[in-house]
Amino acid sequence: MGSPPSADPRVEAILRRGVAEIVVEAEFRKLLASGRPLRLKMGFDPSRPDIHLGHVVGLRKLRQLQDLGHQVVLIVGDWTARIGDPSGQSVTRPMLTEEEVRANAETYMKQFFKVVDREKTEVAWQSQWFNAFTLADVIRLASRFTVAQFLAREDFRKRYETGQPLGVHELLYPLLQAYDSIAVKADVEFGGTDQKFNLLVGRELQAMMGHTPQQCFLVPILVGTDGVQKMSKSLGNYIAIEDPPHEMFGKVMSIPDSLIMLYFELVTDVSDKGLAEFRSQLEERSVNPMVLKQRLAHEIVEQFYGHEAAKGAEEHFNKTFRQKEVPISSVRSFKVEVASYLSGQPPVKAATQFIDLTKVMVAAQLVGSRGEARRLMAQRAVELDGEIVENPLVDEKRMLDGSILKVGKLRFVKLIRDDVGKK
Amino acid sequence: MGSPPSADPRVEAILRRGVAEIVVEAEFRKLLASGRPLRLKMGFDPSRPDIHLGHVVGLRKLRQLQDLGHQVVLIVGDWTARIGDPSGQSVTRPMLTEEEVRANAETYMKQFFKVVDREKTEVAWQSQWFNAFTLADVIRLASRFTVAQFLAREDFRKRYETGQPLGVHELLYPLLQAYDSIAVKADVEFGGTDQKFNLLVGRELQAMMGHTPQQCFLVPILVGTDGVQKMSKSLGNYIAIEDPPHEMFGKVMSIPDSLIMLYFELVTDVSDKGLAEFRSQLEERSVNPMVLKQRLAHEIVEQFYGHEAAKGAEEHFNKTFRQKEVPISSVRSFKVEVASYLSGQPPVKAATQFIDLTKVMVAAQLVGSRGEARRLMAQRAVELDGEIVENPLVDEKRMLDGSILKVGKLRFVKLIRDDVGKK
Repeated sequence: MGSPPSADPRVEAILRRGVAEIVVEAEFRKLLASGRPLRLKMGFDPSRPDIHLGHVVGLRKLRQLQDLGHQVVLIVGDWTARIGDPSGQSVTRPMLTEEEVRANAETYMKQFFKVVDREKTEVAWQSQWFNAFTLADVIRLASRFTVAQFLAREDFRKRYETGQPLGVHELLYPLLQAYDSIAVKADVEFGGTDQKFNLLVGRELQAMMGHTPQQCFLVPILVGTDGVQKMSKSLGNYIAIEDPPHEMFGKVMSIPDSLIMLYFELVTDVSDKGLAEFRSQLEERSVNPMVLKQRLAHEIVEQFYGHEAAKGAEEHFNKTFRQKEVPISSVRSFKVEVASYLSGQPPVKAATQFIDLTKVMVAAQLVGSRGEARRLMAQRAVELDGEIVENPLVDEKRMLDGSILKVGKLRFVKLIRDDVGKK
Repeated sequence: MGSPPSADPRVEAILRRGVAEIVVEAEFRKLLASGRPLRLKMGFDPSRPDIHLGHVVGLRKLRQLQDLGHQVVLIVGDWTARIGDPSGQSVTRPMLTEEEVRANAETYMKQFFKVVDREKTEVAWQSQWFNAFTLADVIRLASRFTVAQFLAREDFRKRYETGQPLGVHELLYPLLQAYDSIAVKADVEFGGTDQKFNLLVGRELQAMMGHTPQQCFLVPILVGTDGVQKMSKSLGNYIAIEDPPHEMFGKVMSIPDSLIMLYFELVTDVSDKGLAEFRSQLEERSVNPMVLKQRLAHEIVEQFYGHEAAKGAEEHFNKTFRQKEVPISSVRSFKVEVASYLSGQPPVKAATQFIDLTKVMVAAQLVGSRGEARRLMAQRAVELDGEIVENPLVDEKRMLDGSILKVGKLRFVKLIRDDVGKK
């Protein structure tokens, strides 16, 4: 099934990377091999106009297929957006005015065309066909599916079975999305794996109505910066493609190391060979993950803002995030005779020695007394290399040669260890 | 709850007889007592234009309330009728053309106004409001109810749970019917008990939309002439109000005795006192049920065709049905010496004696031989008092003084028993 009638290496790359499932892959390969420009359907909800890296996974596939000569059909879901909550009782998906929808669609497209080729994109509004929809059209459409088929959709079924309200109108959502495929004569529809049900309804409806059933191209769901949940604006774990370069860079740097390779694979153009190298470096621990993450952040920012902006963001990050906004050159230094600050507490592990930071703060004239130092710590006003210190006893290994000790917003020193080179 | 603020005996009669349930009876009594003419909603499906006695139960309530000054609003369900099967794949409820709907509605109304007062009836077509319905209207309406609420409807739930197909469009049916109540500002809706769910959805929708919720007037479902299932055209156990007088009379005569009182109660004007008398006569066996059934048939035919027609139907029935189309006066008689025809077979029970009918047929010159008699019996061509005789041995008690023995279409004799009065 998976063996190619097309041996085009570009096609192979498109089908191998950033794909969760294709229904039906063999049919899709045949379509690609036919040489006919395909109509690639992708819909969006204009009540949620912000594109983040999670969406980019699919948009990149569209772009790659455009580069092979295919046509994107972008559908503005101005009708499905209404299904969110037309009764206006919930705040989760408020009804939008026509003007809001139009403004949001513009916002969306401005972002969309940062990835997708505008020249090979046709924009279609659901209102082009649904504004004229009659009750008869709705009845005819709804009659093609059974309630049981729709309650098989996982989220519908769960809500029905656990007694959470599932509005009758919500069953219309997959129907409308499916009808879009009829209206635009879609050859392929794109979506995340969570869209599989809706995409299949479209495929089925096309078959029922005598159209050629569309292929369903499902892309993986990107995990957000928290490393746990799917990337989502409402969860706050997202990297928006409208984020300015500095912010985008910093957000990529905040992902857990475990996501580095996934992000490289799904949202950068680093070659498969490059990915293999990074992967083995990480496995062999021959590279600091931070270094790869900087490379990843650079790749991502460069993609949206170009090389110079990426370089600038990287420098800014190094200056502000890694050194917590302290302009290094102008900071007063304080030489720490490490041995004299070691705490009197018995070490927890033989290898661990603690420094009493209150003593350092008094000696460095950051505070007047150790009591004041402790109070400021309790108020979370003391930072060592950008990390808040609440316990005066600090593992001496955390205090580096060049560490910045900061009190409040304005007082700080650079610590110079007297024992550097001796250890 | 049930105690009347109105002591109007006509109101009491309306609420006592031919009512299964009123939601909410106390509210309905208050409305009746208010003196305001109420809008009594009643819908019908123009794909099923035939009215039978089962429908008459409800129509009589409408008429009784009209006689108190209230207004009927008859809704032609030209849109809900489409929900039957718009995909055209099933033969049970085919889509009707506009002309068919119009013709059927005329047929229906011709019958409807045999019971209901045309002068106090307003006719409304669903198309007056649903033709202009947009997708937005559908979404808004559907959003007011949950799938779980609709799957609570018994027939929906059963179909869903047993895996029988339940089309998504079928959920729209109760919604449309409910919206009708908004459109016509219904004070009360009428229906059989099987309509309770739909009527309550209307009531609920009115409340949600800031209207005064309608009262739901549920009438009992009439059992059909088979005495078992609800009266229904498709089950063939119905008495249509378009049936000609003779046929209507005969069908009433065919109901089992157990239904006599129910029919009297639900579809005649015989007074409560009259009903009580009939009931005790039946209980005491002081009347032949056939006599009461004739009275019932007469009442029913008279209601639709007047006294003369009812009298004619009764005479016709006596002539043709009770005597099996045999014009008694012109029939040749044959005197049966019972003892000489008793079969040689030993009696099964001591009390049972059998006559060999083949011998009687030969003696009466209906056939040339007992062999011919047996052949004709095998061909089901021999009848005793209208019942086919297949076994030559007949319980002598079945052969009455005056019984008609018939062979084929043309040969018959009246049997005169020689032992009448001796037994």
